[in-house]
Amino acid sequence: MSKKQASKSDKVSRRDFATTSVAAVALPALLASEIAASEQVDSAAAEQEAPAGKGKKKKYPSGWKEGTTIPAEYYLDPMHYQRDEAYLADNLWFMVDHESRIPKAGDYFTFEYGRGENIIIIRDKKGKVNAFHNVCRHRGSRLCRDSDDPRPERKNLSVLQLGASGNTQIFRCPYHGWTYDLEGNLTKAYKMRDGFDLSKNGLLPCHLRVEGGHIFVNLSNEEQPPDFEEDTRAFRRMAKKYGFADLKVGAREQHPIKANWKFVLENFLECYHCGPSHTCLVTAHNWDERLSGEEENYQTKEVEEWIGGETYAASGQLNPGFLTGSLDGKPIAPLLPNIKTWSHRTADVTTGWSTGYWQAYDDHIVVVRFTPRDAELTDAEVLWLVHPDAVAGKDFDVENLKELWKVTLIEDIWIVENNHLGVMSRGYGPGRYSESEIDYTTDFIKWYMAEVAEG
Amino acid sequence: MSKKQASKSDKVSRRDFATTSVAAVALPALLASEIAASEQVDSAAAEQEAPAGKGKKKKYPSGWKEGTTIPAEYYLDPMHYQRDEAYLADNLWFMVDHESRIPKAGDYFTFEYGRGENIIIIRDKKGKVNAFHNVCRHRGSRLCRDSDDPRPERKNLSVLQLGASGNTQIFRCPYHGWTYDLEGNLTKAYKMRDGFDLSKNGLLPCHLRVEGGHIFVNLSNEEQPPDFEEDTRAFRRMAKKYGFADLKVGAREQHPIKANWKFVLENFLECYHCGPSHTCLVTAHNWDERLSGEEENYQTKEVEEWIGGETYAASGQLNPGFLTGSLDGKPIAPLLPNIKTWSHRTADVTTGWSTGYWQAYDDHIVVVRFTPRDAELTDAEVLWLVHPDAVAGKDFDVENLKELWKVTLIEDIWIVENNHLGVMSRGYGPGRYSESEIDYTTDFIKWYMAEVAEG
Amino acid sequence: MSKKQASKSDKVSRRDFATTSVAAVALPALLASEIAASEQVDSAAAEQEAPAGKGKKKKYPSGWKEGTTIPAEYYLDPMHYQRDEAYLADNLWFMVDHESRIPKAGDYFTFEYGRGENIIIIRDKKGKVNAFHNVCRHRGSRLCRDSDDPRPERKNLSVLQLGASGNTQIFRCPYHGWTYDLEGNLTKAYKMRDGFDLSKNGLLPCHLRVEGGHIFVNLSNEEQPPDFEEDTRAFRRMAKKYGFADLKVGAREQHPIKANWKFVLENFLECYHCGPSHTCLVTAHNWDERLSGEEENYQTKEVEEWIGGETYAASGQLNPGFLTGSLDGKPIAPLLPNIKTWSHRTADVTTGWSTGYWQAYDDHIVVVRFTPRDAELTDAEVLWLVHPDAVAGKDFDVENLKELWKVTLIEDIWIVENNHLGVMSRGYGPGRYSESEIDYTTDFIKWYMAEVAEG
Repeated sequence: MSKKQASKSDKVSRRDFATTSVAAVALPALLASEIAASEQVDSAAAEQEAPAGKGKKKKYPSGWKEGTTIPAEYYLDPMHYQRDEAYLADNLWFMVDHESRIPKAGDYFTFEYGRGENIIIIRDKKGKVNAFHNVCRHRGSRLCRDSDDPRPERKNLSVLQLGASGNTQIFRCPYHGWTYDLEGNLTKAYKMRDGFDLSKNGLLPCHLRVEGGHIFVNLSNEEQPPDFEEDTRAFRRMAKKYGFADLKVGAREQHPIKANWKFVLENFLECYHCGPSHTCLVTAHNWDERLSGEEENYQTKEVEEWIGGETYAASGQLNPGFLTGSLDGKPIAPLLPNIKTWSHRTADVTTGWSTGYWQAYDDHIVVVRFTPRDAELTDAEVLWLVHPDAVAGKDFDVENLKELWKVTLIEDIWIVENNHLGVMSRGYGPGRYSESEIDYTTDFIKWYMAEVAEG
Repeated sequence: MSKKQASKSDKVSRRDFATTSVAAVALPALLASEIAASEQVDSAAAEQEAPAGKGKKKKYPSGWKEGTTIPAEYYLDPMHYQRDEAYLADNLWFMVDHESRIPKAGDYFTFEYGRGENIIIIRDKKGKVNAFHNVCRHRGSRLCRDSDDPRPERKNLSVLQLGASGNTQIFRCPYHGWTYDLEGNLTKAYKMRDGFDLSKNGLLPCHLRVEGGHIFVNLSNEEQPPDFEEDTRAFRRMAKKYGFADLKVGAREQHPIKANWKFVLENFLECYHCGPSHTCLVTAHNWDERLSGEEENYQTKEVEEWIGGETYAASGQLNPGFLTGSLDGKPIAPLLPNIKTWSHRTADVTTGWSTGYWQAYDDHIVVVRFTPRDAELTDAEVLWLVHPDAVAGKDFDVENLKELWKVTLIEDIWIVENNHLGVMSRGYGPGRYSESEIDYTTDFIKWYMAEVAEG
Repeated sequence: MSKKQASKSDKVSRRDFATTSVAAVALPALLASEIAASEQVDSAAAEQEAPAGKGKKKKYPSGWKEGTTIPAEYYLDPMHYQRDEAYLADNLWFMVDHESRIPKAGDYFTFEYGRGENIIIIRDKKGKVNAFHNVCRHRGSRLCRDSDDPRPERKNLSVLQLGASGNTQIFRCPYHGWTYDLEGNLTKAYKMRDGFDLSKNGLLPCHLRVEGGHIFVNLSNEEQPPDFEEDTRAFRRMAKKYGFADLKVGAREQHPIKANWKFVLENFLECYHCGPSHTCLVTAHNWDERLSGEEENYQTKEVEEWIGGETYAASGQLNPGFLTGSLDGKPIAPLLPNIKTWSHRTADVTTGWSTGYWQAYDDHIVVVRFTPRDAELTDAEVLWLVHPDAVAGKDFDVENLKELWKVTLIEDIWIVENNHLGVMSRGYGPGRYSESEIDYTTDFIKWYMAEVAEG
């Protein structure tokens, strides 16, 4: 990941959540006035996004110009996807889950990436979390099944194979019985000829980091993984403030999205669409496109003071009447251990393109990961973290906890899949990003074009 | 489209519908005698379709010889399909529907073509019909959903998006609320930086013509569309005689066909298969393979006199006892306004390869379009036009109206899909077209090879 | 097929079925001792499978080394599959069924191979079995439908087409009524122009052999098919001993396997996985991985004497208490005509890679074919042959007859599909085959790399 991108992750990704409420129902009427307002944008900014001119060299072989959307082939062509998949595997740290998913020795789950990657995340007997490719070193079988691949049901079947998650003390290949321990060591492989070295045939490990209660993996086969520190600085500060490491998963949702991963990220990195597409979210969050630059700066500063860190990620205040990210503003879980009173605020942070996103409220944390699976398929998983002592059905209602962001996610899936469909047309051409999309979405796209697609 | 092809469309496409009835049940017995008859075909014709010889240059790079079926790769290879799709989009006028589908200002529907094209057909406030790519100029989202892409159902969802058809006074993008009027002008796009010109960001229009009550579009991005007049001359004459523009759609059917579009057209352009495959159709229509050339000429002349035009498209008489294209020969709708008495005849016309086909009876018109969607997928849509004052359930029964051509269509889908499957075998090789397939099917294939595939 | 491979087929493919029983439940405990035992394997053998060194030239362009599993691309890349499919079609004899399936003149069925091949197997009026491509010589339609392609059901449909199996006296194309007799001669094709020669437009035949009651086809378009004799020598000897030609099919099962065909064969050619994966099978069969080389040789010799042929295929004794391949060891059908007493033995034979496998018991024969269908799809079909006079429901119970090998097949499908999934990961790399996989599986892979993939 480029240094530039990494430093971006220190800022808010949806900074447009601001001080005054905008009821989404009033939007159509507002839009006309917004257009008028947009005429006053300073021309320097406009120049910045103008087509390359005056002696500037053509920067991108494809002829793509910054400030505009990218050619359709980058979203649609399987060759580009193949390249993307390999680049992200080599260069990103993927946030895969909260550590509380595997509290005991032998607890494990699998993480699916791309078209064929499947990673076992396991806690060993020393309490350490390990990550291994779910691939037997003998002939390549999967040791654990995955969620799309259920075990056949029939009397008399004798194959023994672990499921996509559970608890185990060994990994025994269902095929020929090669057996590995929780640290990935091959402990049994019978009838191997002389010269076969058990110690050289352990499970292939992935790079792994556990930080702020979350598990991150990198799938590079290089000995030295990419830098972890810079991309996670803001995350680590927020993790500390909200005590991420002590929380537990109160609910989770998984949704396949029939769209290229870049549409998903372009969407998640801007809030220009929040008014038109997320009535519930903008009813809770404070979202105002009409703020002047001065007002925005004031608000950013105020939020930073509240959070207590210069470059800390932050979103801002909730709307009047809202204590948390719920449909009606009422609390949906007990206050988190580190939070003593209702702040009427929310904050968000990301660890970089396509890895993890956190939206913090006083009583819960929403954690989102988007994982590319194919040119036209991206997995979305959302976790809701709550107080470690909170009991589902007693201290919080699972459906109530999930509702706001589940609705928001379904809305995003709708518009993102629809975006993918539209771009398949010969009527699609480079469009121009709005002022509200400049920073996060455009930086993502610049990074993509410079580092991934044409790097 | 080549001039040659265009002039062909002035003739009947299924001229084999002739004077004497052949009950399909008697076919097996007849076939032997047909074979005997086929021995008398003049040898000049045979020479014409013989493999290229005597100093003739190899005309087609693939080595394909006229009069024989084409190599399997043209049907099966996705690269060929990609080329076909682009060529047809650039060069054909697609008949998309009858104008009566959108009588009022704001009425619209979408037309799907190929793997990604989606066109909005809308009547504006001045009563004019417009066609636009269903693609927002901002980031490429679809403004309207399509028929395969239903709206998610869930409480609290706030995304606003138009369906695949309906009535609207604006097109508002579901993603970021960019808004267009019915003439495609962008009227709202807020937070755009200085220098953004609303007037340059309207919806991308498609070439459109409304003729004889039918709407035609061409998807070329060139300013100048291909010629419209020549291909539609016969259609316009028939449209006038039957008063197409004043009719209304009494029923419609849509069927996906799992076959390459060329199999579908090769089928529709000949009636050699009518005896073996279409018992109901040949029971109604007058289909006789046993006519001599002299008899055929006589019949063609008689039909031309009846229709009143030298090169008018025509099929001929219906069988004794049949007043119209129904299963039992009885009327299935009120006489059309322009038709005063039962003529016992039927006529057909086409506007060119893969665009539109009309089969006219005294009480209704059958309209067919075939639209390529993928290498192995073609859409079929059939409209049944009736008297504008006829009321469904009172003046006509919808199922009864559809039955003859619905059965015929399902039979065609069967044999066409089966043809596609067979050609996937290494046992397939160039076959020789019969005398009955020469003209329309062979001209189509010649046009395809010369203009589309190897042009 | 290489000579080397052919001679291999004279040996048993699962010779690991040996003298002493190993209850699968005891396996985990045994595995550790097996590993210890494996240390004594002679180093010469180890050297044989060691990476190419000392002046040896790089034998395979891909850098693959014998004794290790092959690179993932050979299993996954559609280009490789396309090459495999063509090679096998040209060079192998596929066992397609037992002759008793089509006892009477006009009885036929279809055999599907690869992505598009479909072969009609028909007994003609002289009692001869013929094989033809299921492709009309006119425009390439299928004459008979296949099992995945059922006939549409609707009143009034008139298309006439044969199903995937049945009895017929003619093949009449459903499209234009071209008609062929049971010897493939075109007998009717009407309206063909002068110069069309019926006798040159018969159905395209496939190479066919009927041997030991089984039907074999080769799909090469060459006039001269590959050699049949060498690959079938062992099969013919076993067919004679057990009287294959006189038996009948008592039951059959078809299962699609979502895995590349090479995974399926690698699995079927070794019994290293039998302990971990096939409890029922190793409970019946005598499977002992702990035999010394000397003991194995003794056993092989003993079995050869029993069978009565020097290179005869053989598996060995059944476990104590087992008379046949059933779950409980009890007979599941009447003794076969050629077998007079219970031998407590079982024997197996193959006719070469990917064609046919036979496992013989005293009261029934299990026949297996694996047929490549696509890069990630392989058909499995199993026949159970029984005494020709045995009556289902009276002399044998169909479910009971099938149970042991049906369970074994489902277990194999499970582990084989799982192997395919695992190899899609970047964590897969060349693994080393065990001693128990060396001979059949490794010879298959060597043949594949030398003859098919890089030949």
